[in-house]
Amino acid sequence: MNTNKNIIIRLSRYKNALKKLKSFGFKKVFSDNIGDSIGVTPSQVRKDFSVFGIPGNKKGGYSVDELIDELNKILGKNDINKIIVVGAGNLGTALIKYEIFKKEGIHIVAGFDIDTERIDENSEIPIYHLNKLTEFITSNNINIGIITVPENAAQTVFDIMINSGIKGVLNFSPILLKSSEEVVINNIYLQTELESLIYYVNALKRN
Amino acid sequence: MNTNKNIIIRLSRYKNALKKLKSFGFKKVFSDNIGDSIGVTPSQVRKDFSVFGIPGNKKGGYSVDELIDELNKILGKNDINKIIVVGAGNLGTALIKYEIFKKEGIHIVAGFDIDTERIDENSEIPIYHLNKLTEFITSNNINIGIITVPENAAQTVFDIMINSGIKGVLNFSPILLKSSEEVVINNIYLQTELESLIYYVNALKRN
Repeated sequence: MNTNKNIIIRLSRYKNALKKLKSFGFKKVFSDNIGDSIGVTPSQVRKDFSVFGIPGNKKGGYSVDELIDELNKILGKNDINKIIVVGAGNLGTALIKYEIFKKEGIHIVAGFDIDTERIDENSEIPIYHLNKLTEFITSNNINIGIITVPENAAQTVFDIMINSGIKGVLNFSPILLKSSEEVVINNIYLQTELESLIYYVNALKRN
Repeated sequence: MNTNKNIIIRLSRYKNALKKLKSFGFKKVFSDNIGDSIGVTPSQVRKDFSVFGIPGNKKGGYSVDELIDELNKILGKNDINKIIVVGAGNLGTALIKYEIFKKEGIHIVAGFDIDTERIDENSEIPIYHLNKLTEFITSNNINIGIITVPENAAQTVFDIMINSGIKGVLNFSPILLKSSEEVVINNIYLQTELESLIYYVNALKRN
C-alpha cells in the first residue's frame, strides 16, 4: 500500500495508450511516444517503469507487446477482475453496461438493488435483490465492488460488502465511508467535480 | 486559476456536509464538526476558510446558514449552473437524470447525440442532434459541458464545444483532450479508477 496512487493511475493509462498504439500497427515505442499519449514527460515514463523494474531503453525503445504484458502483470488484472455494482439505478445500470470495461477485461458480473422492480436475474448481467449480496460475494470470491446507491444507504451497503469480503470499493455516493477494516476506497464525487469546474470557469471569466 | 484544485473540492464537500448538518437541525457548527464530516482535520478546515477570507472563530463556531451562503458565493454556483451532456448513451443518460445534481442546483439543460434514435426534443431534458450543439451553446450561453461520447469521437466533440464557447469540460472518455484555448478540463477515467483498485486489492491480499 506504499505505492503512490498516481503512479498506478499512470501505469493504467500507459497500458491503454499502448493498446491504442498497437492498434495503429506500432510494434516498438519510445518513452516519448508514451509520454505524449497521456501528457507526461518521457523521463516520467522511464522513472515510473524503473520503479517496477521494467528495464529502460532510451535508444532502442520498448516492444509494445512485452510492455503491455508487463503492465498487465503489475496491474494484476489477471487475478481479480470480477466486480459487482450495488445500486442498479441509472448510474449503476450505465456502469453495468459500460462497453469500455468489457473491452478491457474488467468484468461486471452482477448488480444488486433493494427495489424489486429493478431485479432481473435472467439478464446477461443479472440484477439480484440486495439480500443475496453476502452470499454472492462469498461464493464467487468477489473482491471489488462499486457503490451507486443513494447517500443514505451507502454506509450500510458498504458495511455489508466489507463484512462479506470486499477489499476495494469505487464509491459514487457523496459521503465519506468509514471502515474499521483495511479496505481500499476510491471516491468519485460527481457533484464536487462539477462544482470545481464551475468555480474555475467563473475564475477564467473574471480574468 | 492559481487556486489548488483540492481546496475547491474540499470547499464543495464542506458545503455539502453543512447542508446535511443543517437538515439535522444544526444552527451552529465548529471546525471539528465540519472536519469530521469529510475526513480532514479541524485546522485544515480553518486554513481553507481563511484562504477565502471566511473569518475563523475557534470558540464560538460558525453559523451554518452564513457559512453555506459564503461557500455558495465562493463556488459561484449562482452564476453558472447550466450544463450540457454530449453523448446520450447509458452513461450520458444516467448523468442527465442524476437526482443529486437537480437537488444541488446543478442544471443539466440538454443532451446531444449523433444517433437519431436517441434524439428526443420533447423530453423534460431534451436530447438534440449533435448538429444543433453550436447553436445551443451560443444562444443559451452555456459554459460547461460533460463529454460521454466514445473515445474516437471525443476530441472532435471537444473541439466543437470549445469553439462554441464552452470553458469547462468534465470528460469521461479515456483520452487526453488537447486544446489551444484556455479551458478547464476535469477527467474521470472510470477504467483507470477500477484498475488502480485492482492493483491495491492485489497488494492487500499479498500482505
